[in-house]
Formats: sequence, structure tokens, C-alpha cells
Amino acid sequence: MPTPAIILVRPQLAMNIGMAARAMANFALDDLRLVAPRDGWPNPDAGPAAAGADDVLARAQVHPGVDEALADAQLTFATTVRPRDSGHEVITPREAARRMRAAAASGLRSAILFGPERAGLTADDIAGVGTIITCPVNPRFGSLNLAQAVLLVAYEWFQADPPAPAPPGPAAVAASHGEIAGLAAHVEEALERAGYFHVPERTPATLRTLRRLWQRAAFTPEDVRTLRGIVRALEEGPRRRG
Amino acid sequence: MPTPAIILVRPQLAMNIGMAARAMANFALDDLRLVAPRDGWPNPDAGPAAAGADDVLARAQVHPGVDEALADAQLTFATTVRPRDSGHEVITPREAARRMRAAAASGLRSAILFGPERAGLTADDIAGVGTIITCPVNPRFGSLNLAQAVLLVAYEWFQADPPAPAPPGPAAVAASHGEIAGLAAHVEEALERAGYFHVPERTPATLRTLRRLWQRAAFTPEDVRTLRGIVRALEEGPRRRG
Repeated sequence: MPTPAIILVRPQLAMNIGMAARAMANFALDDLRLVAPRDGWPNPDAGPAAAGADDVLARAQVHPGVDEALADAQLTFATTVRPRDSGHEVITPREAARRMRAAAASGLRSAILFGPERAGLTADDIAGVGTIITCPVNPRFGSLNLAQAVLLVAYEWFQADPPAPAPPGPAAVAASHGEIAGLAAHVEEALERAGYFHVPERTPATLRTLRRLWQRAAFTPEDVRTLRGIVRALEEGPRRRG
Repeated sequence: MPTPAIILVRPQLAMNIGMAARAMANFALDDLRLVAPRDGWPNPDAGPAAAGADDVLARAQVHPGVDEALADAQLTFATTVRPRDSGHEVITPREAARRMRAAAASGLRSAILFGPERAGLTADDIAGVGTIITCPVNPRFGSLNLAQAVLLVAYEWFQADPPAPAPPGPAAVAASHGEIAGLAAHVEEALERAGYFHVPERTPATLRTLRRLWQRAAFTPEDVRTLRGIVRALEEGPRRRG
């Protein structure tokens, strides 16, 4: 059964990577991924803070970007301190844990993005994930640090009951983040060539909107192949006519 | 509505007191109590770690012992890393939060003991509390630090729904920890004078057993007064006869 991947995006302090690893190990998570850690990896400052969670650190993988870190996950989340106006569904760590357990029982992999210590995740980091996790906190004092946020999500995963077995029969298989991201990139390149992005200021927002659209659609791998075929056909069309 | 008191017993590092205050403030708890902090109080190392939870630190009270810190609470808990053979009921942070919410809705105060960083709570610290809280963790890696343990208990308190209103009618009022501790001390002194503790090696275990007994009995304040009257009468009896 796949366990959720914890993805630290551009973490600043190696000590916090160690503390996140410790939080994970307490709740039986061991798939730690780092996107562009500021001070490089491996880093000797992580070990002492891990307090014995050395296996988690040793297995940690480094990825150049968020899409690469999420690539093999079918169920993707991003944690934010407060909900943003990004069009995502926003749920609690408890509800996320319930969904991750259900996904794991069907053999699907979950992954959760955690932003850098001060700035948090950017709109672009978030655009391609399925759902936002926001922990309910005191509205007058919300100040969870990186390792605490990891701790609460990992704790809820460990607490969540395994779901009832799924009814027999063929289940729809969700496309992985990598397949969705591949489709998104394919469409974006095609649109670029087609001159779709003629107002450069609007391009970033348009790209995020498209990413949300693909994410929400809950495509299967077959859907993705079909859609990429359509994009190819549309692009080739004028050449045939020309 | 009274909110639960967080009691740090013999904390070693002021930084951890600050981090515990931060964890509390995130989940709207502000009643921090310190039993014999190793490095004294107030302590300048606590502030930076509190990350803005200065009100919690400013309001923190110092007590010489566990009984004094628990005195005004009717519902008392102690946190331990693993269950001990102390005869207490052992529950999860989630169940504890449910009970604390129910108690608060009846106007009763809860308090939770957290032990020192390395050693944890002693058998004597625990003897007088009602219930043990143990967080379910990975059996192969259980390593929650002090502030993390506070965070999880505070988080569950904040998450727990307020209970349904109690049915109308007179509710039995639980005796406070101070009333129970007063009864226990009264009985112990009387037994001491009566020569009950004639095998000194057994005295500490006997005292813990008696404390458990009073705690389990769920006495009302009226019960406590009645029992103390009985103890006085028994002690005075021989004098009258003499």
C-alpha cells in the first residue's frame, strides 16, 4: 500500500528538514521529497534535528520542480496557512487523511506540498494540485511552523481508519500528476505556437486556470492519451491543408 | 467556559516552554502553568521560541508541585509516551479532547500534565490524575518532543466539537483536584499517626494506590467533606475513649 509523500518545496533550513523527517517517522511516513532545497542536499544540519529518523533522511529524493516531485501521485494536495482565491477545494488535515487512506486502499499514491518557511507556496506551486489543505487554527494567532504542519498532517494520516473495502468490479484509474502535467505542457506548447498567449501579462493566470481545469476533470490515463492525440491532430491540421 | 490548563512539569529548556506556548496559542489555549521550571521563571529564552505567543508566556503561573498546579481542575490528565502499569485508564488525545469539551460545557476545568523533556513524568506525578493520555505513534519510532505533544493535544481540543447541551436538571458536581488532594493528604496524615505505614519500603506504592482510589471514586465536594469528617471522627475516637 503506497504511503503519502511529503514534499518540502524550497525549504530553507536543513534543521527544519530534519524536524519534518522526525514528525513523519512518528507516524510511519517515510517518503520525503525535497524541491530545490536552498542549502543543497544532503546537509549535515538535518541529522541532529531528525532525532533518529535517519532512514527518512537517507531515502529523501531531490527534485528540480514541483511537477517532478508530484509526478507519480494520483492524489495531490498543497498546504496553505489560509485559503486562497485559487478555485481549489479547501479541506482540513482530517478530511485529507480520510481521502488519502481511501486512495491508498485502491493502490493510488498521495503527495502533499509544504511551502518554504516564510513565504509559503506560490500560486504557481499550487496551480497543478487537486486540493488545498488548511489547518483550522485560532483566527487571532495562526503560526504553525513547517515541521508542525507536517506533524499534524502525518498525525491525521496515522489516526485515520483504513476505509471499508471497495466494492468489487473495475475501478476507474486516475491519471497521475505526471500524466496531467504532460498533457498541460503539451497543450501550453501548442497554444504558444498558435499565438494564443498574445497578451503576455495575462499568460501566468491563464496557465494556472488551464492547470486547474485539467486537474478538476479527473481524467484517466486513457483520457489523457486521447486528449493529447486531439491536440496533435489540431496542430497538424493546418499543415495538411497548407 | 473554562479552557484546559497546560501544565509543564519540571521543564528543562525555556525554549521548549516558548514553543509550547506557541503551540497553545495556535489552538486558542492560554492557561500555561509551570511546575518548578529548572532554569527559573521568567526566562528570556522563552520569548523568541514563542513566536508571538507573548500573552501566554506573560500569564504563565509557576507552582511548586503538581498538586498545586492541578488544584482548581476537576478533570485531570497526564501524558505519557507509553502506557504504564499504574492502573489508570489510557486514552488518545482525541478522546481526551472530547471529554474536556464535555467538561467545559458543564463549567468544569480540565488540566493536562506534560513531563520533563527527557525523563517524562514520574509515578508520583501521575498518581493523582484521573486519566492517562498516550498518543498512538509508530511502534518502531516514537519520538515526540514536548512542544509536539502539547501541539497534538491542543489541536485535538480545537478540533473537537462542542458537545450537545446536557439535559436539564441538577448535574453532579465533581470535586476539584485540590479537594481530592486535600482528602488524600488528610487520610495520609491520619494513617501516619496511626502507624499504618510500618513497612517504609512499601509506603510510596501504598500512597499511590490510595491516590488512585480517591481519584477513581468520582467524589463530589460534599462527599469529600463527609469523608474528612469520618477521618476526623475515627482519629478522635480513641481520645474520647481514653
